[in-house]
Amino acid sequence: ILLDQLEASQQLKLLTGKRVLITAGPTFEAIDAARGITNLSSGKMGYAIAKAALEMGADVTLVSGQTPLLPPYGAEVIKVTSAQQMLNAVMANLTQKDIFIAVAAVADYYVLNPSEQKIKKDAHILTLELAPNPDILANVMNLPEPPFCVGFAAESENLLEYAEHKRRKKNLPLLAANLIQDGFGGDENELVLLDDKGTHPLPRASKLTLARQLLRHVANMLPKSSTKE
Amino acid sequence: ILLDQLEASQQLKLLTGKRVLITAGPTFEAIDAARGITNLSSGKMGYAIAKAALEMGADVTLVSGQTPLLPPYGAEVIKVTSAQQMLNAVMANLTQKDIFIAVAAVADYYVLNPSEQKIKKDAHILTLELAPNPDILANVMNLPEPPFCVGFAAESENLLEYAEHKRRKKNLPLLAANLIQDGFGGDENELVLLDDKGTHPLPRASKLTLARQLLRHVANMLPKSSTKE
Repeated sequence: ILLDQLEASQQLKLLTGKRVLITAGPTFEAIDAARGITNLSSGKMGYAIAKAALEMGADVTLVSGQTPLLPPYGAEVIKVTSAQQMLNAVMANLTQKDIFIAVAAVADYYVLNPSEQKIKKDAHILTLELAPNPDILANVMNLPEPPFCVGFAAESENLLEYAEHKRRKKNLPLLAANLIQDGFGGDENELVLLDDKGTHPLPRASKLTLARQLLRHVANMLPKSSTKE
Repeated sequence: ILLDQLEASQQLKLLTGKRVLITAGPTFEAIDAARGITNLSSGKMGYAIAKAALEMGADVTLVSGQTPLLPPYGAEVIKVTSAQQMLNAVMANLTQKDIFIAVAAVADYYVLNPSEQKIKKDAHILTLELAPNPDILANVMNLPEPPFCVGFAAESENLLEYAEHKRRKKNLPLLAANLIQDGFGGDENELVLLDDKGTHPLPRASKLTLARQLLRHVANMLPKSSTKE
């Protein structure tokens, strides 16, 4: 803990005065009163980035799906459940943000016609119809003056190919890619950063260490004097 | 904490020598490498029952779905993900158990043909086919010499009607019923116990308090000298 505080205090204040909005954790799409679709995201990577951004002097707003993690001290936290709620919280809190980092594992689909009551079990095959959720990052990138946007890609295969495809399709300056099997749920991860200059692998390390490296990369890419008024 | 330890030490050893198997938490049914169907169960009620059973002198085996909770000290813990895994763990650990308490919120359905790789998002409606999961409690009750079985029912409406129907259908000596909106995720709950003598409401209290009350009820219902050899 002491070592952790020492390291934290030694982070260069590269983001002083910057306002950062971060999404983290899984979303949960209701099937009925008790059941829903979610994913294996623990929220640890997004929370680590929020902590690292605070260390580096930023103002941090964290829009978080359901996770038992304690938010880092000093972050403004907005808890949400579904992807639609996360989109609403992001759009309502984007004003004057300099940086948007979309770490949350947002459900790509929601359940059409969820039941308010718990569906009773029967012996038959049940069919769930799923419809695509809004793409939060695309909504932010489509704003007239978007903040500096960082995307995350979690893939189970073809990591670099899928990630670069996602970065170009969304026109993102920076994307962090990771394999689900490397990072989901654990305290460590390994990342590859993709930008216009190419790929920058960040070898296996704690999520906090990776978060600091990612944010130093972001700080270097920011236009000078970009703080919004 | 001290008060908690004092209360714990004052529990009557009504279950000394008894072997208790408890399921707890949600199950997670994979859709693909990252996504799955789960439910809002936190595991807190099942873990509280495990703790209370240990206080009362029992040997406790806890088969737990994925939850960040710390298991009570002294319990044998088996971690599982899906309903099928939970069934396998229960059946493999039933030998010589005196009491089986099925608290887990087991997914009623699993996803047919889950994908090993993460399904790529597209703009179309996706259809998931779900098939019924095995009923763990029914499998246990169908054994030639089942342990004393306690079921749980979590309902969003018609609590007593649905719960008594479940108890009779499964031929259970005792069932604890609760409303999802009262208990899921929180530290408190309220229960209604249903047995052949009728209904026994346990008013709102901490889950540990309710767990102790439930186990005293169980201890009273056990046949004398029922410990399995």
